Amino acid sequence: MFIRNAWYVGSWSHEIGGETLLSRKILGETLLFYRAESGAAVVLRDRCGHRFAPLSKGRREGDGVRCMYHGLLFNPEGRCIEEPGRKSGVSPHTSVRRYPTVERYKQIWVWMGDPDLADPALIPDCHFQDDPAWASIPAYIHYKADYRLILDNLMDFSHLTFVHATTLGGSASIATTTPKIEKLKNGARLTRWYLGEPEIAPYLRGFNTFDGPVDRWHVYELDIRGNVFTMDSGSAPAGTGAPEGHRAPAAMQFRATQIVTPEDGDNSHFFWTYAHNFNITDATFTRTLADRITQGFEEDRLMIEAQQAVIDVSGDDQMGYIRADNALTILRRMIDERIDGERSIIGA
Amino acid sequence: MFIRNAWYVGSWSHEIGGETLLSRKILGETLLFYRAESGAAVVLRDRCGHRFAPLSKGRREGDGVRCMYHGLLFNPEGRCIEEPGRKSGVSPHTSVRRYPTVERYKQIWVWMGDPDLADPALIPDCHFQDDPAWASIPAYIHYKADYRLILDNLMDFSHLTFVHATTLGGSASIATTTPKIEKLKNGARLTRWYLGEPEIAPYLRGFNTFDGPVDRWHVYELDIRGNVFTMDSGSAPAGTGAPEGHRAPAAMQFRATQIVTPEDGDNSHFFWTYAHNFNITDATFTRTLADRITQGFEEDRLMIEAQQAVIDVSGDDQMGYIRADNALTILRRMIDERIDGERSIIGA
Amino acid sequence: MFIRNAWYVGSWSHEIGGETLLSRKILGETLLFYRAESGAAVVLRDRCGHRFAPLSKGRREGDGVRCMYHGLLFNPEGRCIEEPGRKSGVSPHTSVRRYPTVERYKQIWVWMGDPDLADPALIPDCHFQDDPAWASIPAYIHYKADYRLILDNLMDFSHLTFVHATTLGGSASIATTTPKIEKLKNGARLTRWYLGEPEIAPYLRGFNTFDGPVDRWHVYELDIRGNVFTMDSGSAPAGTGAPEGHRAPAAMQFRATQIVTPEDGDNSHFFWTYAHNFNITDATFTRTLADRITQGFEEDRLMIEAQQAVIDVSGDDQMGYIRADNALTILRRMIDERIDGERSIIGA
Repeated sequence: MFIRNAWYVGSWSHEIGGETLLSRKILGETLLFYRAESGAAVVLRDRCGHRFAPLSKGRREGDGVRCMYHGLLFNPEGRCIEEPGRKSGVSPHTSVRRYPTVERYKQIWVWMGDPDLADPALIPDCHFQDDPAWASIPAYIHYKADYRLILDNLMDFSHLTFVHATTLGGSASIATTTPKIEKLKNGARLTRWYLGEPEIAPYLRGFNTFDGPVDRWHVYELDIRGNVFTMDSGSAPAGTGAPEGHRAPAAMQFRATQIVTPEDGDNSHFFWTYAHNFNITDATFTRTLADRITQGFEEDRLMIEAQQAVIDVSGDDQMGYIRADNALTILRRMIDERIDGERSIIGA
Repeated sequence: MFIRNAWYVGSWSHEIGGETLLSRKILGETLLFYRAESGAAVVLRDRCGHRFAPLSKGRREGDGVRCMYHGLLFNPEGRCIEEPGRKSGVSPHTSVRRYPTVERYKQIWVWMGDPDLADPALIPDCHFQDDPAWASIPAYIHYKADYRLILDNLMDFSHLTFVHATTLGGSASIATTTPKIEKLKNGARLTRWYLGEPEIAPYLRGFNTFDGPVDRWHVYELDIRGNVFTMDSGSAPAGTGAPEGHRAPAAMQFRATQIVTPEDGDNSHFFWTYAHNFNITDATFTRTLADRITQGFEEDRLMIEAQQAVIDVSGDDQMGYIRADNALTILRRMIDERIDGERSIIGA
Repeated sequence: MFIRNAWYVGSWSHEIGGETLLSRKILGETLLFYRAESGAAVVLRDRCGHRFAPLSKGRREGDGVRCMYHGLLFNPEGRCIEEPGRKSGVSPHTSVRRYPTVERYKQIWVWMGDPDLADPALIPDCHFQDDPAWASIPAYIHYKADYRLILDNLMDFSHLTFVHATTLGGSASIATTTPKIEKLKNGARLTRWYLGEPEIAPYLRGFNTFDGPVDRWHVYELDIRGNVFTMDSGSAPAGTGAPEGHRAPAAMQFRATQIVTPEDGDNSHFFWTYAHNFNITDATFTRTLADRITQGFEEDRLMIEAQQAVIDVSGDDQMGYIRADNALTILRRMIDERIDGERSIIGA
């Protein structure tokens, strides 16, 4: 049900530090996130190897963590290094699983699969999340939905016309435009242009850097390893060459990430940013933009959770394919194959 | 678990209209109730045939409804007539189930089985719900209980003495009277007379149209097709010939419906009216009467939901038969046979 | 999953009386507790044998109880003695299971197994709960946890150092002391001494009857029949011979019970007292002591419920044995063997 050999975003960097012991379930496993005294991010299974008390109810000690039920102390590798009441040595049975961890782009990335394959070079490029040329606010939404429904949503932007009529969409053209779809080795790239639109999207109203007709675009990739969606989007004065790659000074450009980390089969974590490279020192603009995007993403959440509730009572009934499902169908099949592939290796 | 070839009450007429898209689960299927621009009641599966978004989160457009996820438009027959982003035609895979629907007696009746058998003539007579000679208020109670427990309750009025001692009952005679039970083709008729009672039922106190001893009666039928209970009940001055069919002018006569539509195996919808043919222009009386009946029916609900909770933890333990169970036993067997019969046809 | 041939505490004596019909689930069965007019405690299955309405929603009548659904009246042995609407006799199918019951030590003890084996002499000695030489307050905590996790907690007091650092514990010695463990026929006895401690436990601060170093002890037994934990504990001036059995006048002595009655596989009832034999007429002290113990026991509850939540998502993963698990391992095995033994008899 999940691809395991992938880097998943487990938390924002700012969520841990000091004495904080953050507990969060990912791919059905409850993990503990904390910072060692050294500042390094540590991710362990949130479960004492002794009697399964949660370590997140324990206490950070130096670089390690002590279970506050019977007092076993674990180092950042998850090995027990102190067992109260025992004169020497420790039981060999109580160690805790440690997960390969990388802190990058203001996020804690966790490798959920075979540790030998945990190559940090596989983390997708989300540099604009901490590039000084771009401004954004780290954000999070919890979904009561299978992560794949959120990916479906991202693979078909025609929904912007309907779900986001008064926020992120605002144009019938989005639904009627056929995207260019490119299958990638680990996902897909979609390109959508809406040329000569009469106005900018509703969520940008009042922030327009120019007047008159607009060329809008959404160019994005979704990497199924970690469900990392990265998007280049924006609005430029119509006819100034945006589709050919020329970005006029007045163009409003954005780089967004939407990263979907399955909590379990029924719930998902959704980490996102929406970075802009204009007005970057205007904190009010950055905050207002984030608030308006939040409003739009809440529209998605309500629709997707409602959809999930219907699916939950639909048994084996089959959904009805339409042409706009091309990209999501490609992606779903790719995910299934990857999961099957991982299973066959485990089975071997 | 349910008889499917039957007209079930899905909603009161007043619950739909204008832009309202009412979602209600019946027999385990979530249905959408709305009125077309023409005023006609429409009932569709509340599930877009494309990606299973609920149509009740959509938008009424003329006689149809548009899914507000990806914008597919459905006509009142449930056929997709517009698929955004497609130049011509629509996918053949997205249509939505449409349910035969009749509006009658201020209610929306839905046929949950084979559409070819949906004969409106099969709807039981509940004319007093909209007959100007009778006054009543449409009412509804939600039950966390299997519909059959509510039917059981209706099949044994001895409970009036205990559950409703201070409301609908008020007499030990109800429990000690043996009803006349007639097995019908699709249910049962029960006749109960309590002659020469010292006083009227508690819920009628202050509204009595006469003084002195009372002949009371409950004569009712339950049709297992749709679980439609209709009752002729009342109180007449004792000895004025009520049992022989003569209704003295001072007699207080009532016609009631109690219609139990299964929501799913664990929950039920309970639609009811309690019509009177005296004081019919006295709205305060109608309202007060409905409030007092509501109080009585809440007593039923509390007892039946408590009973359901016990049954839920009772596994295969068998209930203990007593003589007063005659009518409910007949009815249960009839329901089981009907369900088995429908299954054998589907299986054939 | 439960030992059935045992006396379990079902309620405190003060919980029933007058018209009270107390419903409480024990070992997965919902029981009715009440007092007959004679004052005798009665325990019946809380389920009318007729249609499974809960008798706790009924009415006490003399020594019996009447179901207030259809009015069947049951005597304290659970036999139906009145069936409304029936001229003579009663149905033989509606009787209710009656459980052997003993009221002792301010508690209602219920035998959940084979009635022929219900020997009141098997009830463990908890006389200090109603011995005038001891003062205590009957207390109760509900646990969302398997009863065995609570027994585990009691079998390893090293947790006092960590879970109860500022309440019941207050000393690192508790975790580093190896207890003396004696296997009993029906449980285990543990003896723990901490000699020459610099101070009394935090929960006793302000109540000390002496100054200076302390000899502390916990000597307790757990009987797996009914999960009855009884403890002799206290603090004496160091070096006054407490370990040899001499209790100096200034010693603070306690007798505690912690009785764990499974509600079902996921929940437990926890009945407890903490009696003292000094200041016994000082009601404020008794109340304050109970409040402080409550605070400590809430620490246990939070940890154990958190542990249960982790176990619930841990599938078949095995806990890691350490030396401090000796006593709980003995007890767990003893419980399993007892349950298997009972099953083999039932199977025979």
